Amino acid sequence: MSAAALITAGAISPRTRVLRLPETFVLESGEKLPALQVAYRTWGELAADGRNAVLICHALTGSADADDWWPGLIGEGRALDPARHFIVCSNVLAGCYGSSGPIQPHPDDGEPWGSRFPRVTVRDMVQAQARLLDHLGVGELSLVLGPSLGGMQVLEWAASFPQRVRAIAPIGVSGRHSAWCIGISEAQRQAIYADPNWQQGRYSVADPPAKGLAVARMFAMCSYRSRENFQQRFGRKLQAGDTRFSVASYLDYQGEKLVRRFDANTYVRLTQAMDSHDLARDRGEYSAVLAGMDLPALIVSVDSDVLYPPCEQRELAEHLPQARYEVLHTSAGHDGFLIETDALNAMLVSFMQSLAPQRETAGVQTG
Amino acid sequence: MSAAALITAGAISPRTRVLRLPETFVLESGEKLPALQVAYRTWGELAADGRNAVLICHALTGSADADDWWPGLIGEGRALDPARHFIVCSNVLAGCYGSSGPIQPHPDDGEPWGSRFPRVTVRDMVQAQARLLDHLGVGELSLVLGPSLGGMQVLEWAASFPQRVRAIAPIGVSGRHSAWCIGISEAQRQAIYADPNWQQGRYSVADPPAKGLAVARMFAMCSYRSRENFQQRFGRKLQAGDTRFSVASYLDYQGEKLVRRFDANTYVRLTQAMDSHDLARDRGEYSAVLAGMDLPALIVSVDSDVLYPPCEQRELAEHLPQARYEVLHTSAGHDGFLIETDALNAMLVSFMQSLAPQRETAGVQTG
Repeated sequence: MSAAALITAGAISPRTRVLRLPETFVLESGEKLPALQVAYRTWGELAADGRNAVLICHALTGSADADDWWPGLIGEGRALDPARHFIVCSNVLAGCYGSSGPIQPHPDDGEPWGSRFPRVTVRDMVQAQARLLDHLGVGELSLVLGPSLGGMQVLEWAASFPQRVRAIAPIGVSGRHSAWCIGISEAQRQAIYADPNWQQGRYSVADPPAKGLAVARMFAMCSYRSRENFQQRFGRKLQAGDTRFSVASYLDYQGEKLVRRFDANTYVRLTQAMDSHDLARDRGEYSAVLAGMDLPALIVSVDSDVLYPPCEQRELAEHLPQARYEVLHTSAGHDGFLIETDALNAMLVSFMQSLAPQRETAGVQTG
Repeated sequence: MSAAALITAGAISPRTRVLRLPETFVLESGEKLPALQVAYRTWGELAADGRNAVLICHALTGSADADDWWPGLIGEGRALDPARHFIVCSNVLAGCYGSSGPIQPHPDDGEPWGSRFPRVTVRDMVQAQARLLDHLGVGELSLVLGPSLGGMQVLEWAASFPQRVRAIAPIGVSGRHSAWCIGISEAQRQAIYADPNWQQGRYSVADPPAKGLAVARMFAMCSYRSRENFQQRFGRKLQAGDTRFSVASYLDYQGEKLVRRFDANTYVRLTQAMDSHDLARDRGEYSAVLAGMDLPALIVSVDSDVLYPPCEQRELAEHLPQARYEVLHTSAGHDGFLIETDALNAMLVSFMQSLAPQRETAGVQTG
């Protein structure tokens, strides 16, 4: 993998703004970042009463450009409508699309933080988002929603800032990362570590562990889809003009595509953050923690999800006092939340209508 | 990984015998091996009427030592009893436990074949086993059984030698490798290829692509087990005296363990053979091919199998004219066939009793 091929890794869209906060940012671990940077996008305007704000949290390799990766949910007449809502999406802490993270320059030497960037937790991500919302003048959130790693942030928002969140919609996620997901994450990290370019995370931008990251992505793509999805799309077809199976070429392509837009240290830190996800950590007994999260919650399962199967969302729905449980029917697997956006949009519309309708109406008038 | 750590790769047990056939062995592809070598074990004696022979076919990293990897099925009072049956198990063609394969010396230079060893198919494996049985004087097989890659051989036995097989028991397998399994295989091979020691398969014994093979195994282990299995065993436990999750340490251990006993070129060739598995190749329409396999067949699903889920065995059972379908209930995942051997043994005993009981009785008297 040449340096040129990696040139777009971490590229942020021209519409992304970057908030720079010069104060020390203390992580859950006690480690400190000398300053905080949060890259974000917004759509719509904050209502005069401040009650129309919606926060979207992105998944592992996502960015603040929610209209790119979740277009079916955002727009005129969609669940999230800039004419009615003030929509915010920020790149996660430790991400590589503009927020503080491994590809940003270290203040001491101007070189990328790389593996010097500390481990963060999902709670740290949420704290960083809270600073952004303070800056934007958003006091409370009418809804926090997101899939996968985004869903972890959604749940942590409700647990960390109960007074600031009116409703949540975590999608394709659990309340604590399972051993299965940790194992699959770990195998992917080991693929990166096995690349000689890894160099304990001190690789140069010109020589990143691209092969290792591509292999990690290939593994991940299998886990993001499903047997049925692959069977329908590829079966035993061979690539045209080749003796390779189409599914192998597809995975190659997915690996190469990620390498061009993502960073290996970031991949390591974000998957470690996912593994740290446990709503109950330092908060008491798991079911009691969920029982204390007393706000309307739309819990969405993707029925073919291999990584976060429906049993995990049913567990959330059983313990959250105001849960509404919905199943997205698709053979697409975990990634169904990116694909079946019409059905997901309908679920969100219905859920949002059920939330204090007079407020929604007020939002329309003032937004 | 040091050379010393790899010293046991390909070690065969003292009781393993090796058949060497000097004739050219022509593969399904048309490629030729200058000679054929088949490592095998037997238990019991062939009956005078030759009707008590049973062939066990092993899975990806197995060996002829079926009493090591499937002890619950072999022995006095078990389904396969050396007092009654003549049991044969051979290392697969392209394997690394004594049969012709990448670690064997090439006749031209005495160096390991390595990646020069041609691709083989499951049909080639079965043809090699047939030569062994010819040598042993076994005309027909009362039963051919095996799990996973072993199950592929079982099905190919019935399709390739219908006159030579009286009954089959394929376990945790499909009639044609799915895109999902091919994709998961491909990601594993790419992990091996990404190791700089791979050298296009021309690595030295002293410097094998151990990291790549270990990563492949880590990912494979996730696919061989299940979410529930990992959750029960590991949950979010940390390794004692460490900040790592127990599941991560477990996968590390599994990777290291395989590297000490297996060879990367062999892993590549055997997973490619699995990907080639398609009972219908050059035989006609898939369901018609199955419909033509008119012999008693015990089809066993492992209900938590992620790789070869029960829908695949149900498909076999629906089309095979004399299928008996059983489900092994376990949360262990694909590897359940190695773990739930008591239940599997009971299924086999019942199935074998249903097969021409007078012959079974005769077997007892003469065996």
